[in-house]
Amino acid sequence: MKSYTAKLSLLAVVTIIISLFSTSMEAQDTGENHKIVFQLTDNDVKSQKALTNQLKNLTESWPNAQIQVVVHSAGIHYLMKEKSGFKSEIEALVKKGVEFKACENTLKSKEIDKLEILEVAGFVPMGIGEVVLKQEAGWSYIKAGF
Amino acid sequence: MKSYTAKLSLLAVVTIIISLFSTSMEAQDTGENHKIVFQLTDNDVKSQKALTNQLKNLTESWPNAQIQVVVHSAGIHYLMKEKSGFKSEIEALVKKGVEFKACENTLKSKEIDKLEILEVAGFVPMGIGEVVLKQEAGWSYIKAGF
Amino acid sequence: MKSYTAKLSLLAVVTIIISLFSTSMEAQDTGENHKIVFQLTDNDVKSQKALTNQLKNLTESWPNAQIQVVVHSAGIHYLMKEKSGFKSEIEALVKKGVEFKACENTLKSKEIDKLEILEVAGFVPMGIGEVVLKQEAGWSYIKAGF
Repeated sequence: MKSYTAKLSLLAVVTIIISLFSTSMEAQDTGENHKIVFQLTDNDVKSQKALTNQLKNLTESWPNAQIQVVVHSAGIHYLMKEKSGFKSEIEALVKKGVEFKACENTLKSKEIDKLEILEVAGFVPMGIGEVVLKQEAGWSYIKAGF
Repeated sequence: MKSYTAKLSLLAVVTIIISLFSTSMEAQDTGENHKIVFQLTDNDVKSQKALTNQLKNLTESWPNAQIQVVVHSAGIHYLMKEKSGFKSEIEALVKKGVEFKACENTLKSKEIDKLEILEVAGFVPMGIGEVVLKQEAGWSYIKAGF
Repeated sequence: MKSYTAKLSLLAVVTIIISLFSTSMEAQDTGENHKIVFQLTDNDVKSQKALTNQLKNLTESWPNAQIQVVVHSAGIHYLMKEKSGFKSEIEALVKKGVEFKACENTLKSKEIDKLEILEVAGFVPMGIGEVVLKQEAGWSYIKAGF
């Protein structure tokens, strides 16, 4: 009987510790479990500004989230050295761990050389395909723009 | 042998009952298994009207679906007492169980007080984050707008 | 001991064969494992052209992917015999296995007869509902437009 009570007490203590630990985990959600793929296809500066602000907020709230921004179609200017209005913001976001990927299909069809793309950005063969692969791997999808 | 035949007959009857029941369940899909998070970021009245109509149709076809509309960025006017053109429609949708959430980050950056937001709406700390959390919890995602 | 070594060697060979096979599978990704639902709601010709190009690229890179395009709201013109600017492209994509679905709710609200829709297209009762059902079935979601 004594041993039974002791076991119950131990169980109670362990349960309390686990629940405290869980609460503290939740309160300190720094984003390590979040994986988010953004898709930008819009050349509108307002859309690009909204996206940039969302990325800033997101990296502040969830500094450890995995974030990838796939840029294709008309949105490609966002990542071009001569055309992007957000170069310093993109560079700052890359330092925080955000990845930017330019679509090689878009570069081909618009006759843009890879050298014209910001050096901090990477490349993917097909923008849409990359967004699909990420969703298949469990990433959440956010379509940028309005 | 008799007992074996009896068991087979019982199995057949049970199978038929289950299949009838499944068909009837499917025919009466009232949406209880569907969870949908909408994201509105657009201040264009046409976008907001299209979203409102989609929500009306959806609540008629699937009255028991769980529906949440996350409103942030330029879309925030949709939920503002003085600026929304869809107040009565939003109130009617809330009565049907649709939830509307205003992004607190957007309120801060646009210096909008919570009192300026429709009383039937709730709040989330970060619009994008909420859309991500919902997808992680298995909700389907619909980006509003065109 | 001899038998143990033989088993280990066999295991090594099998492992190598499997890994070679996996690599070759990856290199030849023709898309059979990919299921993608597109949602078009935009009547803007630029959006429709971008979508059409994306579908062309996708069917070339992943000829065996399952692709469905749900068209509703203002996007419905894309599938109308008298209004679509992409009839031949849509027909070519259907031959490659892409499915196009017009939303019956949209047809009702805009008083469009089914006979006015391209013959290669099919119908779904509710566009949004179809996009939700597809996501629930594990399809990746791409919102067309900018």
